[in-house]
Amino acid sequence: MTVIGPGATIGILGGGQLGRMLAIAAARLGYRCHIFAPEAESPAGDVSAALTRAGYDDVDALRHFAAAVDVVTLEFENVPVAAIKQLAALKPVRPGARALQVTQDRLAEKDFARGLALDTAPYRAVENEAELKAALAALGTPAILKTRRLGYDGKGQVRIATADMAKAALREIGGTSNILEGVVAFDFELSIVAARGLDGSFCAFEAVRNRHEHGILRESRVPSAAARSTIEAAIDAAQHMAEALDYVGVFAVEFFVLKDGRIAVNEMAPRVHNSGHWTIDACRTDQFEQHIRAVCGLPLGPTDRHSDVVMENLLGEEIDAWRRLVAEPAAKLHLYGKSEARPGRKMGHVTRLSPRT
Amino acid sequence: MTVIGPGATIGILGGGQLGRMLAIAAARLGYRCHIFAPEAESPAGDVSAALTRAGYDDVDALRHFAAAVDVVTLEFENVPVAAIKQLAALKPVRPGARALQVTQDRLAEKDFARGLALDTAPYRAVENEAELKAALAALGTPAILKTRRLGYDGKGQVRIATADMAKAALREIGGTSNILEGVVAFDFELSIVAARGLDGSFCAFEAVRNRHEHGILRESRVPSAAARSTIEAAIDAAQHMAEALDYVGVFAVEFFVLKDGRIAVNEMAPRVHNSGHWTIDACRTDQFEQHIRAVCGLPLGPTDRHSDVVMENLLGEEIDAWRRLVAEPAAKLHLYGKSEARPGRKMGHVTRLSPRT
Repeated sequence: MTVIGPGATIGILGGGQLGRMLAIAAARLGYRCHIFAPEAESPAGDVSAALTRAGYDDVDALRHFAAAVDVVTLEFENVPVAAIKQLAALKPVRPGARALQVTQDRLAEKDFARGLALDTAPYRAVENEAELKAALAALGTPAILKTRRLGYDGKGQVRIATADMAKAALREIGGTSNILEGVVAFDFELSIVAARGLDGSFCAFEAVRNRHEHGILRESRVPSAAARSTIEAAIDAAQHMAEALDYVGVFAVEFFVLKDGRIAVNEMAPRVHNSGHWTIDACRTDQFEQHIRAVCGLPLGPTDRHSDVVMENLLGEEIDAWRRLVAEPAAKLHLYGKSEARPGRKMGHVTRLSPRT
Repeated sequence: MTVIGPGATIGILGGGQLGRMLAIAAARLGYRCHIFAPEAESPAGDVSAALTRAGYDDVDALRHFAAAVDVVTLEFENVPVAAIKQLAALKPVRPGARALQVTQDRLAEKDFARGLALDTAPYRAVENEAELKAALAALGTPAILKTRRLGYDGKGQVRIATADMAKAALREIGGTSNILEGVVAFDFELSIVAARGLDGSFCAFEAVRNRHEHGILRESRVPSAAARSTIEAAIDAAQHMAEALDYVGVFAVEFFVLKDGRIAVNEMAPRVHNSGHWTIDACRTDQFEQHIRAVCGLPLGPTDRHSDVVMENLLGEEIDAWRRLVAEPAAKLHLYGKSEARPGRKMGHVTRLSPRT
């Protein structure tokens, strides 16, 4: 097992806030970062030694990028698998193509979870109106029609309240590669953020209770107040999924927790995750440092937390409250350096610590 | 009072590890950083959005730098005052020329402290052999001959054990602008790292007990185990010095603590300080964020600590121990991304936390 030591350069695909916080964690351990992203604005590039602005289909740019770095990782799971495969022929890419293939496609992701005997919401692949009607008949309403690919933060999905909305929903969502999911009557949402090391070691952060609004994470809270058996089942499921993918790095699995305490896998993110941002302020090793440790082949760090914590996202113009937040003694303010506060855009977050219960 | 809000660009003079940690803290609050430094290698530039490599006497480069930033600060106190004055005519510079004029010159610094009725080691200005002999007669031996300017980490000083070493010491240190300091029989060294806000608010971190070896900081420890009256006197002295300089930003004052608990000012650093690195891992607001808050006109943050802590510097090839340190559960490893591990060079530090006593 080759350790990639401090002084080396870590290539990161994606230039957003997750890359920014990864680059900061990498810098603290003495690494250089090189960001590869197509966007003009680069929160990650602003804190990195090098930045390549190019598309994920630019094979020349990818080749130069691979030559300039010692290991490649990502902060954005919708990097085309072709780019990952090109890079992986030149340098270690962690996590690898298999994890992306599974998590980029809602259908493959659910098939994967079911294949591991994990529960999910009921679902059916939907390619046309006839299949949608059959799926609605099987799963009932309400149900949610989603694109199989490229959905995030509530985008790429339509709620179907009654079967007569089928045609309109299909028109709204467009395309032929969709999935219908039954609505799960859950009590709350729980996520497990965990890391798997290059040596197969596994280490989970404490379980997180999440609250979404309009499909966007609003708040994460630790401790989660979930039952011990629920948390253990969720951590087991996360470990099982990571091992099946031979995963290396930090990842998150979001679960629905049902009234009876059982869990259903909602989705897996093959990267550091918004519901793990609280670890920066409350844990010995945060999710970003943990990811850098994993992809560089270092031992995973201890993840115990010293405080209770509530993390709240700052979306769109909510960032305008920064003056109040920066003056609030119990709040730790984190801003991502984005210039345009579009509605729903993740502009920053604030964590509030209180003594550990 | 003009607040410089997130999204603005902070110019930092100096490209070393202090600038690196300042840039990271600034990024967390949503600022961009622009580093100005003459050296090819730039630990700070590696985590900043922009880097100007130029000498501090390059008036064109300084003018362009001023045009590109919203406020200027520094991580290196030996920036020529002429550069500070040029920049200050164009943009706010915090701290300003007065603080640098006093702290760049050991004689001016001691005169300044004495002018505030603070104790220091006994001292005499020395410009030639006759003055050195007179000074040795007045102060006795052992004594330390130091250059008035540009000394750091034990460089630019010679210990004089007996009066007959005077001529050789003067030859070794060179130049005509020196100071002879009497040796203080101190019990231990204490430092106060504190901040003064743009509005005149003042906030000190907890007092730190320091151990130097060969003039280089080896270890800092909090709590300091100093007497309450000693700590109060040191914090009062630090505040007094900051107010006399109308100082804005974080600074450190190093004190000798005598056997009877009284203190003598050793020196003042007009910047974040090595003896404040422990605040990153142990305090709600660390010294780097506090400095960014001060120079941007934000309210100072709370500085309470959640743990006891020992910070140890990694000098030169001690960095080779990184594999052991990164695997040590109680240790937080910080590396500065420097390529060459010259003897005595500050390559990183490690903090070890334990429950608060």
